[in-house]
Amino acid sequence: MNILFVMYDQLRFDYLSCAGHPHLETPNFDRLAAMGVRFTEAYVQSPICGASRMSFYTGRYASSHGAQWNGFPLRVGEVTLGDHLRKLGMQSWLIGKTHMKVDAEGMARLGLSPDSMIGARQAECGFDAWIRDDGLWGQGPDGFYDQKRSPYNEYLKSRGYDGENPWADYANAGVDDEGNIASGWMFMNADKPANIREEDSETPWLTSETMRFIEQAEGDWMAHVSYIKPHWPYIVPAPYHDMYGANHVPAARRHEIEREDPHPIYGAFMANKVASAFQQDIVREKVIPAYMGLIKQADDQFGRLLDWLEETGRLTDTMIVVTSDHGDYLGDHWLGEKDMFHEPSVKIPFIVYDPRSEADATRGTTCAALVESIDLAATFVEAAGGIVPNHIIEGRSLMPWLHGETPDTWRDFVVSEYDYSVTPMRTTLGVSASDARLFMVFDGRYKLIHAEGGFRPMLFDTVADPDEFHDLGADPAQAETIARLYQMLAQWGRRNAQRVTRSDAEIDAMRGSSARKGILPFMVDGSEVATDLTVKYRGPARQIHLVDDDNV
Amino acid sequence: MNILFVMYDQLRFDYLSCAGHPHLETPNFDRLAAMGVRFTEAYVQSPICGASRMSFYTGRYASSHGAQWNGFPLRVGEVTLGDHLRKLGMQSWLIGKTHMKVDAEGMARLGLSPDSMIGARQAECGFDAWIRDDGLWGQGPDGFYDQKRSPYNEYLKSRGYDGENPWADYANAGVDDEGNIASGWMFMNADKPANIREEDSETPWLTSETMRFIEQAEGDWMAHVSYIKPHWPYIVPAPYHDMYGANHVPAARRHEIEREDPHPIYGAFMANKVASAFQQDIVREKVIPAYMGLIKQADDQFGRLLDWLEETGRLTDTMIVVTSDHGDYLGDHWLGEKDMFHEPSVKIPFIVYDPRSEADATRGTTCAALVESIDLAATFVEAAGGIVPNHIIEGRSLMPWLHGETPDTWRDFVVSEYDYSVTPMRTTLGVSASDARLFMVFDGRYKLIHAEGGFRPMLFDTVADPDEFHDLGADPAQAETIARLYQMLAQWGRRNAQRVTRSDAEIDAMRGSSARKGILPFMVDGSEVATDLTVKYRGPARQIHLVDDDNV
Repeated sequence: MNILFVMYDQLRFDYLSCAGHPHLETPNFDRLAAMGVRFTEAYVQSPICGASRMSFYTGRYASSHGAQWNGFPLRVGEVTLGDHLRKLGMQSWLIGKTHMKVDAEGMARLGLSPDSMIGARQAECGFDAWIRDDGLWGQGPDGFYDQKRSPYNEYLKSRGYDGENPWADYANAGVDDEGNIASGWMFMNADKPANIREEDSETPWLTSETMRFIEQAEGDWMAHVSYIKPHWPYIVPAPYHDMYGANHVPAARRHEIEREDPHPIYGAFMANKVASAFQQDIVREKVIPAYMGLIKQADDQFGRLLDWLEETGRLTDTMIVVTSDHGDYLGDHWLGEKDMFHEPSVKIPFIVYDPRSEADATRGTTCAALVESIDLAATFVEAAGGIVPNHIIEGRSLMPWLHGETPDTWRDFVVSEYDYSVTPMRTTLGVSASDARLFMVFDGRYKLIHAEGGFRPMLFDTVADPDEFHDLGADPAQAETIARLYQMLAQWGRRNAQRVTRSDAEIDAMRGSSARKGILPFMVDGSEVATDLTVKYRGPARQIHLVDDDNV
Repeated sequence: MNILFVMYDQLRFDYLSCAGHPHLETPNFDRLAAMGVRFTEAYVQSPICGASRMSFYTGRYASSHGAQWNGFPLRVGEVTLGDHLRKLGMQSWLIGKTHMKVDAEGMARLGLSPDSMIGARQAECGFDAWIRDDGLWGQGPDGFYDQKRSPYNEYLKSRGYDGENPWADYANAGVDDEGNIASGWMFMNADKPANIREEDSETPWLTSETMRFIEQAEGDWMAHVSYIKPHWPYIVPAPYHDMYGANHVPAARRHEIEREDPHPIYGAFMANKVASAFQQDIVREKVIPAYMGLIKQADDQFGRLLDWLEETGRLTDTMIVVTSDHGDYLGDHWLGEKDMFHEPSVKIPFIVYDPRSEADATRGTTCAALVESIDLAATFVEAAGGIVPNHIIEGRSLMPWLHGETPDTWRDFVVSEYDYSVTPMRTTLGVSASDARLFMVFDGRYKLIHAEGGFRPMLFDTVADPDEFHDLGADPAQAETIARLYQMLAQWGRRNAQRVTRSDAEIDAMRGSSARKGILPFMVDGSEVATDLTVKYRGPARQIHLVDDDNV
């Protein structure tokens, strides 16, 4: 079996027609949902690209792998999905974005060269890179945000687009009425068609690369197909740029009560630039149709891929996953971007198709089990025929759910984290770098958000208040619920996350072994241990050794 | 400045005369205490050799470095004291024991050869090994407990001791009345003189090696002088074997009430082999005089080293630390060995001599601040002229206390951990490998012990009950105290332990930098950002680039 692990960047869980979007039709994502299981309660380990992705790629919580924000390097030696799969004979390929920052200092300390195969995999988060393109080729007075080479820019140049950075000038820009570049960075330009042939834009390009990869692939493989879109810059080529208009923009899920005496951290985020922008109706009316167009294009390209897989007979032996690294507020809760823990940000689309007959019973169903993004690594290890190394991977395999079985036990809560130490909000709030951290605990009904640094918690009752407008964190009537969720967080905080060099099975095998290797410290006179372990008195001093009783 | 970091294995905090032992005179340890500061409230991160040592050598809690028991390998790439010191131009040498198990699988995954300098340091916990000898050359039907070569056995052979394992036959054995080997493994032989010339026994040998190292050392160095004794096998050569007798053995600190309905985990440990042995008066009367003799020998050898350092003028530029990796119950609380969290096990001797004039004011004083073993790594980094990398090292430098300053803030509690998954007690108790873990939180008065796996906590009030006989963990009157200590444990559980690739200073430097690299996602029309960051409309489409405003 092969695995196609498809990720879209910043794709909201509810911007699919199978998830109930009122205006956006996504027949191809829906088709995958009809072939597999759609998990309706799936959460990321962190609502920020880099941290979330490192959790997907390691199967470990952000606090466990330590790369808690974009640009925090993943520590050298951290075991990745690629390490696990390769041990099982399955290749691990990357086609697109990871947002992984190499731990150059750690690699230098260990003498690992990025040119070596081992070094290259360390630098690519355990993947072999078919294409590595993080899709953010911003360029400013201090140079490029991303110092690596851009395969997509090279592609564009080969197709005749000129200049140093056609990503910025063509793929992510329109043209204004006077014939000038209309940068996709500016929300006011989101309704313009991107200045590029549709087939050359990012999503079709990566889809073509995926097909090109599959055509030449041999042996068992997992391919992480990782699209940059519908992530900003929010701009999409024709015909997608005007498929949707202001009349298709859902009303903002926000309430005046949220702005009355908000929790200080929520308040600081509501005051940031992107929130201020999305609080303006004009921004939502410009951006959301473009966002929908980007998703519509993604769906069309996914259909192209599915059709091709079907035609080439590959649907029968390819597991396919569609998910995202986090959502997008789009003005809900007076916020833009992601970062916090309301559903539009922390919940993700999560569809898994297992081609095997064991999964026939669940095709087209939904599953409301509490799922974490780290479960995918565990699922893939099991799909590759392995036993999940639960001393390293903290997620659980979803295979039982895919095969119509209900596991004896399942998690009672999910945890997500956010480190805002790099953001301006930390300055506003005046907290230290180590205290600029948030933890979400969600038990399926109540969502507690703990903030380090002496703040009260936030609390939402998603049954009584599905829109999460009413923060109950200061409500004395909720003391018991808050205490209960804090106990869950404390339990999680004590998890055994770093004993990565010893499995439970190895521990079982260790038990009692030291006695048989001559460590016998607890004997009064030797009568306490089995005769074959007893140190024998035999012969005169200076000629005696420990002997096995059987040989005496 | 150089650093001598002297560790004795299993040396109880109260078996020094400066710490109030009623019969054991340790004038040389007392001399160091008179030259420096004796920390009276110092605790190990785990009351077991390997885990405790990995905390000393990394400056990190056991749950952070992951090597939570003897033989659990320290993960490849974990940053050690040696890594920190070498960056500051200070060598890091090992003379003796570390109990470090190499992460062979991790090294193979990263292609690191143990023969290379980098590989050798990875395999030796960041040290360059002058001598690596873990001092446990037990040998049984399944071979040697320790597969490495034994420098001490080689030394003994060079001195004419015969056989494959003179460590077992001479250094750690006596001779019985019939001229047979009387193994030191058996407590009944503890009163016999070890079958070896005193100057060839382990403690003098390692002291000589230390002097040999220092004589040839150049540049700044830290040397970890790590003795195996007074760790079992409890047997000591003449004249130390009969310096103390049953009349010098302190009464066992134990109480019948401890055996009435004990906490199940404590009960399981009280029923194990070593506990059962030490519950017999005859064992205490045989073993404790030998243990005292081993310490007396250690003190004499430490005096030899101090005299030599003084004669050679090295006392003026050598920082000296004396400590231990944990204590020894010796029958107190009906227990033997270490493992649990009563003071005889978890508290350690901790004396620091700083030769510099800044420390003159504190010479000969004691300090009752709550100290953790991980503080030593931080102290050494500061002694070497560095800034403590607090995103990696979790301990705090003790330098203020050494220099007579009171830090603005200091920790309110210490944490220690114990993983008993490998022990027979896990089987007795029927808990899973991951649940076989204990956490101690001590705030200077109350000591809470939390056990995973659904047990109630244990609680001791060390003011009202300094002997720790009365477990208040089930007392409803203590609910508030228990909740308070659990909050401390929860706070600790959320610590930021794995963000090891980004310092706070680097985070500060990251702030705002992406905008200057062209990441400008939150603009409505460009008016929101500084003019030099604004994307300019300039010229016709397809010839436009981001420009610095100054250059327009």
